[in-house]
Amino acid sequence: MTRHVVALAGGVGGAKLAEGLAAHVGDGLDVIVNTGDDCVRHGLLVMPDHDTVLYNLAGIEQAAFGWGIEGDTFCVMDQLGVYGEETWFRLGDRDLALHVARTARVRAGGRLTEVCLGLQASLGVRGRVLPMTDAPVATEVRTADGWLEFQEYFVHRRQEPEVLELRFAGIEAASPSPEALAALERADAVVLCPSNPLVSVGPILAVPGFRAALDAARARGVPVAAVSPIVGGRALKGPADRMLVALGHEASATGVARLYAGFVDVFVLDAVDATEAAAIEALGMRAVVTDTIMDDDASRARVAAAVLDAVLA
Amino acid sequence: MTRHVVALAGGVGGAKLAEGLAAHVGDGLDVIVNTGDDCVRHGLLVMPDHDTVLYNLAGIEQAAFGWGIEGDTFCVMDQLGVYGEETWFRLGDRDLALHVARTARVRAGGRLTEVCLGLQASLGVRGRVLPMTDAPVATEVRTADGWLEFQEYFVHRRQEPEVLELRFAGIEAASPSPEALAALERADAVVLCPSNPLVSVGPILAVPGFRAALDAARARGVPVAAVSPIVGGRALKGPADRMLVALGHEASATGVARLYAGFVDVFVLDAVDATEAAAIEALGMRAVVTDTIMDDDASRARVAAAVLDAVLA
Repeated sequence: MTRHVVALAGGVGGAKLAEGLAAHVGDGLDVIVNTGDDCVRHGLLVMPDHDTVLYNLAGIEQAAFGWGIEGDTFCVMDQLGVYGEETWFRLGDRDLALHVARTARVRAGGRLTEVCLGLQASLGVRGRVLPMTDAPVATEVRTADGWLEFQEYFVHRRQEPEVLELRFAGIEAASPSPEALAALERADAVVLCPSNPLVSVGPILAVPGFRAALDAARARGVPVAAVSPIVGGRALKGPADRMLVALGHEASATGVARLYAGFVDVFVLDAVDATEAAAIEALGMRAVVTDTIMDDDASRARVAAAVLDAVLA
Repeated sequence: MTRHVVALAGGVGGAKLAEGLAAHVGDGLDVIVNTGDDCVRHGLLVMPDHDTVLYNLAGIEQAAFGWGIEGDTFCVMDQLGVYGEETWFRLGDRDLALHVARTARVRAGGRLTEVCLGLQASLGVRGRVLPMTDAPVATEVRTADGWLEFQEYFVHRRQEPEVLELRFAGIEAASPSPEALAALERADAVVLCPSNPLVSVGPILAVPGFRAALDAARARGVPVAAVSPIVGGRALKGPADRMLVALGHEASATGVARLYAGFVDVFVLDAVDATEAAAIEALGMRAVVTDTIMDDDASRARVAAAVLDAVLA
């Protein structure tokens, strides 16, 4: 019997666990991805989180970084530089083809999720990658320099400015995609991947109607698990640790668990943080301690197995 | 003193003469290009004639074909094929960067001619390449299969269907770009390049207001020269010979001259067609016989010199 698992994911960490989950449940996997990082570069719609998950599920991700396509070239980017276009957001040639095709199909009237599913099918991936919404939502961060677009902060300024405030522009008018809602309705389990709780998982949960659909699933007895993106007080990748502290939270597994208290049943934390298990269970979750580092296909599948064992056993 | 020369050009043949003219008059050259062949591919605005002239003026054109960029790669195109996009219109990676940047700037509100001039400046070309109009015009050909977009006929069907009728969709609403009109106003001479008289030079002349501006220049004493694209009864490149016959004209230098009678003062024909000189002079033009084959930079400059000698001497 196919098990239906819905994963909520942002970028690289989420993509790694998604690939691990796909190794177990195959086409039973629906990954709902954050679209708050999406941006228009050179007139093309770029979806960093969607694409990172997609390339990982397709097994073609750039191994050293986790995003982009392994062995990609940069001929278009270099020539765009000749024309005076900004080049700090490096898009490879094969990667760019995805943005070109997607932009053309959306401009021609295609609905975002349908366009994404069509492109995914061409790569032959197992599972589906579902944008959290078909509506435009833009994560913005306030710094000492004022409000910045997310990629300006994340890529151009290398996450260096301190984040004083977050907002998800447009989210009031957004609603979950029909596919995302349908995925939650048939889910046997929901997994919050080890992604930034504030700017990766946060926007998904903030889409009006999403939390209600998640709560409805839990009311039907569907378990919700989360995997900590903070290990030993540090984010494995990205600025989650500093961002948590700057916004008044704690850069620890417990700090993340506090953000998820009330709608997460199982919290998976790394063995190095085992002493936090009691504090996490005090929040009303079951704590599962395991090695959560995913540096190859085997460890991705192993962490995914630990999560699935905890919620589907 | 800078001599101002306005050339009217379509694709490869026109681009070769344009490069030859630039060798003599440098920044005094304005090439007004046909935009009827322009098309949207993969959501990107592609301008075959503009780009062929641009790449020739920049000295980076693909030597074997005359269009595209020498040594270009096709990584994006190959990946677009993976996504099921049509790939018969092959766009190289460096070439694609031009379409990406141009489309982004036009979509952001830029006027077509200003956008093109900005991109040209980045390549450091001598002279300017001016779209005949900022308005959309689409050359269409009627065949036994009905009306076809120009590139569908020209590239996809390899110019094989017989052309029964031509139309320039949108041309009634078009007007010459301000830059094109200003170029004609300051011109010391106008040169109709050896391009297809029906689908390359024809659309330029058909833009409402263009012929009046050309006539006004002639009334001020500005000479107009044309170079035959038909040599020995054959088009050097493309379907001009078959198209002329199919549409009731003659595939000869004289046949082209008849189309230009009344607004061309000097008609340059190839030495192999020298016997036609008298018939052409009978149309009210001065016939200049020379070797018009342009297979290298030296011959391009030599043909350009012959044209300029005839009109500026």
